[in-house]
Amino acid sequence: MQFLRLGAPGSERPAVRHDGGTHDLTPLTGDVDGAFLAAGGIAATRAALAAGELPALDEGDLRVGPPIAAPGKIVCIGLNYRDHAEETGAALPTEPVVFLKTADTVVGPHDEVLIPRGSVKTDWEVELGIVIGATARYLETDEEALACVAGYVLSHDVSEREFQIERGGTWDKGKNCETFNPLGPFLVPADEIADPQELGLRLWVNGELKQDSSTKNMIFPVAEVVRYLSRFMVLRPGDLINTGTPAGVALGQGEPKPYLREGDVVELEIEGLGRQRQVFGQA
Amino acid sequence: MQFLRLGAPGSERPAVRHDGGTHDLTPLTGDVDGAFLAAGGIAATRAALAAGELPALDEGDLRVGPPIAAPGKIVCIGLNYRDHAEETGAALPTEPVVFLKTADTVVGPHDEVLIPRGSVKTDWEVELGIVIGATARYLETDEEALACVAGYVLSHDVSEREFQIERGGTWDKGKNCETFNPLGPFLVPADEIADPQELGLRLWVNGELKQDSSTKNMIFPVAEVVRYLSRFMVLRPGDLINTGTPAGVALGQGEPKPYLREGDVVELEIEGLGRQRQVFGQA
Repeated sequence: MQFLRLGAPGSERPAVRHDGGTHDLTPLTGDVDGAFLAAGGIAATRAALAAGELPALDEGDLRVGPPIAAPGKIVCIGLNYRDHAEETGAALPTEPVVFLKTADTVVGPHDEVLIPRGSVKTDWEVELGIVIGATARYLETDEEALACVAGYVLSHDVSEREFQIERGGTWDKGKNCETFNPLGPFLVPADEIADPQELGLRLWVNGELKQDSSTKNMIFPVAEVVRYLSRFMVLRPGDLINTGTPAGVALGQGEPKPYLREGDVVELEIEGLGRQRQVFGQA
Repeated sequence: MQFLRLGAPGSERPAVRHDGGTHDLTPLTGDVDGAFLAAGGIAATRAALAAGELPALDEGDLRVGPPIAAPGKIVCIGLNYRDHAEETGAALPTEPVVFLKTADTVVGPHDEVLIPRGSVKTDWEVELGIVIGATARYLETDEEALACVAGYVLSHDVSEREFQIERGGTWDKGKNCETFNPLGPFLVPADEIADPQELGLRLWVNGELKQDSSTKNMIFPVAEVVRYLSRFMVLRPGDLINTGTPAGVALGQGEPKPYLREGDVVELEIEGLGRQRQVFGQA
């Protein structure tokens, strides 16, 4: 089962793919958001599909939007793959490194991404995204943590390295430029992903493979990330967690580092979570 | 004119104080939020008040909520007062230091603030808050920047110093605990603040004055902060910017540093922007 949102930016309508067909989800909900997930929307969708209550939908050439409506917050884990920490010259973290993206950076999986004005170090990062389905607060066990996960999405944590690292202060300055979080194409319920730590993830720039790893290489796996974060903030239904990127970003390569330029095409995928393709433009 | 939101958490209703009286704002808007501010809500309120179209409201013992509905994002400026940078041992920033708070940290000005479990370094920070009223993107002049400001609020940027500084990664880990952003009691339109760089700000802990400064001591003033941020992210109506705190926080004091404990009472005020009072509890 794949939840998705189809239509023009800001007017997407919810849909669900199941058994090779696409169904309109609007008889059940106005949107795929925190309220829907918290109220058992995934189970209700299964029941409605089984009962034949969701009409077939022709996707035609409808734009694919981000699969969840604007998240309440986006929490990101940095340096969560050993090989990526090493390529950036950073020490291996002893506990999760946390930073934030703002929800208004989210765009659809195939939308244009804008290189910020003045940027010369725009970089790519394929990541597994966790979508929260139940409030997570001071969790104690991995089981509690996984029970708060509604599902998984493919997420692109676009980053500007000069803004992030060389302009003073925290990383947030290089993580929140407009369009910097392509998301989707769809959300897969957690119970349909056999093991979130066994997913291949890959990214290409202009057809050349740049990142090729597996979520098994995470330093802090999904359950630990959710449990850890719940000690520092409340995670709420609809929130998104970007779990970090493996080696192969531009920052980690030799000079001149191949940062993104207008016209570059980035494609990325995670096993079972679909594929994104963005043409980079200039803000 | 003071915009405020009255009622129980999550069911606040908008109101406006004017000429010594309080008026119900619901004939004009369902809430004080980004859409209201972007659509000229402040001018519409003035016109409605002048036309006598807003009924009187008895505040009675209604709780005062945060004066704007959940902001889209909260952007914070760190080390923006020379004396505070010095007390923390940090170098003076050469450009604004940026970090983020999530919108769900916002509570009312007199609500309980929770010391996180395991925290021994919860600290206070009185700050001038900027509320954005028009989209700010790649602004070039201070005039453009100030034209994007809807108004000002009193903001408490509660911080956990161990989480912020000693636990790896960015400051965000110590800035986003639940209840960590008391806001209000009210929003004052920008054109009713003669000079946002001439406002006294003060904070007391258990009746003892701890912070006593003026916004004239900011390193980067309001206009520069908004203009600067607009190069790194899009600021949208309803967004909040916390502009930094002056000297006098617990972190800057001698050992043993007087971090907050359950039962402590923090009061803070900014000239013209009202006063907050929080009793600290334990999460």
